[in-house]
Amino acid sequence: MQENSHIPATDSDVERLVVGVDVGGTKIAAGVVDPYGQVYSRVQLPTDTDGPERTLQSIAAGIEEAILAAGIRKEQIHEVGLGIPGIVDPEHGIGLFSANLGWKNVAVTRWLEDTLRLPCVIENDVSVAALGEHLYGAGQGVHTMLYMSLGTGIAARVVINGRLHRGSHGLAGEIGHTVFVPDGPLCLCGARGCLETLASGPALARLAWEKIQAGHITLLSDLDILKRGEQLTAEHLFAAIAQGDSLSKQIVFEAGAHLAYAVYLLAMSFDPQIIVLGGGLAHEENPLIETVRSEVARWTTRSPVFQEIWAPDMLRLTALKRDAGILGAAALVSASDAIRKL
Amino acid sequence: MQENSHIPATDSDVERLVVGVDVGGTKIAAGVVDPYGQVYSRVQLPTDTDGPERTLQSIAAGIEEAILAAGIRKEQIHEVGLGIPGIVDPEHGIGLFSANLGWKNVAVTRWLEDTLRLPCVIENDVSVAALGEHLYGAGQGVHTMLYMSLGTGIAARVVINGRLHRGSHGLAGEIGHTVFVPDGPLCLCGARGCLETLASGPALARLAWEKIQAGHITLLSDLDILKRGEQLTAEHLFAAIAQGDSLSKQIVFEAGAHLAYAVYLLAMSFDPQIIVLGGGLAHEENPLIETVRSEVARWTTRSPVFQEIWAPDMLRLTALKRDAGILGAAALVSASDAIRKL
Repeated sequence: MQENSHIPATDSDVERLVVGVDVGGTKIAAGVVDPYGQVYSRVQLPTDTDGPERTLQSIAAGIEEAILAAGIRKEQIHEVGLGIPGIVDPEHGIGLFSANLGWKNVAVTRWLEDTLRLPCVIENDVSVAALGEHLYGAGQGVHTMLYMSLGTGIAARVVINGRLHRGSHGLAGEIGHTVFVPDGPLCLCGARGCLETLASGPALARLAWEKIQAGHITLLSDLDILKRGEQLTAEHLFAAIAQGDSLSKQIVFEAGAHLAYAVYLLAMSFDPQIIVLGGGLAHEENPLIETVRSEVARWTTRSPVFQEIWAPDMLRLTALKRDAGILGAAALVSASDAIRKL
Repeated sequence: MQENSHIPATDSDVERLVVGVDVGGTKIAAGVVDPYGQVYSRVQLPTDTDGPERTLQSIAAGIEEAILAAGIRKEQIHEVGLGIPGIVDPEHGIGLFSANLGWKNVAVTRWLEDTLRLPCVIENDVSVAALGEHLYGAGQGVHTMLYMSLGTGIAARVVINGRLHRGSHGLAGEIGHTVFVPDGPLCLCGARGCLETLASGPALARLAWEKIQAGHITLLSDLDILKRGEQLTAEHLFAAIAQGDSLSKQIVFEAGAHLAYAVYLLAMSFDPQIIVLGGGLAHEENPLIETVRSEVARWTTRSPVFQEIWAPDMLRLTALKRDAGILGAAALVSASDAIRKL
């Protein structure tokens, strides 16, 4: 896709242009999108996290830049959709809690609507990515799917009959903070042994670092970044595996096995058509994803009921990758339109 | 409720009388029910499992007896709803597989409709119980709930926005056949260490029996039934606990802790408003249910995210008890009506 595609010709399409905004803890990505998921502009700017007002100002700036970059007037924008990390109240447009943004009860849509004079809708960022995959990505044409984000954090979100299943508190699909190993590593959420402490990007790095500190022999010890005092990442482990590093292999295998159990649990719970993996650790095939695939396959040999539920092609990787946030936030507008029409 | 209540006065209610049928492996229960969940008759007869045709004949006999017992004519029955154990295809009215009935691909509704000249709908028996609790029982007024059946088998079924979430293969909520202890006891389903092998009624009895055989000291050894060669049941363990039997206490505690983890997993996955426990082991409070309650409460102290999701009054016991099957099957008719109206 180009950075700036031509603007659609028909009036009805023009009327339905939206801005999708992916609000992250470090950067804000925004873009103008049409109902077919065509992205007309993409802008990115740093998130000002020096208080909610400053953060809202940087979000508003991102939206205006995206409109400018698409070469259209603000009046041509139908609505703005935003994906926000943490717990949100979409009905009242409030960011209830976000560790990344330092938010507690921030009236997001009211502030933005007053400032921009454009209708705004918000939702949790992983929910938004799930909607994006459903409408424009790996879940097109599927009525019931799970989207599982693997990266710095781990979370799943659920689309049932084409609609986001939020649950009573917007926390349906909280597999990342489900305890898999009681008395395991302490999680940022306060619990011990959550999946996130066993299989997220930072967890892989931490597990490797602990082994290096304990004197384990590994190719990772020779990395220049360690000598420079920089942080290990999952990518370093994947690269080391390619060179035959057995410690990295072991760590990634164990994390992948935990993720496979998560996929198994979610499949047994929801009996979905597909499960889409997204987030930084699932943009493409890698040793972690390979392990997830092979370990999920092993669950089918262990459990005849799971064999009824599962087929290998049900596990898909994101089709949207870095556009997932923008397209998801745009899909949120369609979803909220659909709900209003009910 | 009386065995035979008076028949409703208004024509519109009379038009909407249905027969609810609970088809079990040993007995068939059927009753005439009005749209308000009032049961006008209850009949019970043994299930003839000597081939599908004989089973269907006993089901048809149950339906006719229920109509007769309600003192009404067949023409007053709007529809028949049936709860069938095992995997069913409600769309085509086929019993795909039932270990209890010895069924494989039985065209249930076609046979019954040809024989009775009444429209019939079928669904899995636990799904039907879930719908019954939702419409007439512990889940009235709730839009999203899980129903978990604890008895000879263990299974959960899911109601989302007032509708049964079946999943792609009708297997959503298959927590009973989810592996909790890899390499655990062999389950009837073919897997090892399913929840059902750790916490069902037969599992409790088996675990106690194994300990007795291994020479453990327990009040259970003195039971007359054992001397007569009869089978232990969960009720025997509950009675022994009341007398201070520590082995029974230990076994029931471990089973309850597994069930509590199941409740925790389902709550983290679906974020429901309530979870209703039904089935033979959950008709009333008992040491198993007490353990589930206290262990679920312990998960809230371990996990702040679960604390957001959970409140003690979310765990409810069935309000329908032995009428769950009949009322659930009747609720299925309402549910299928609702779907047809969409």
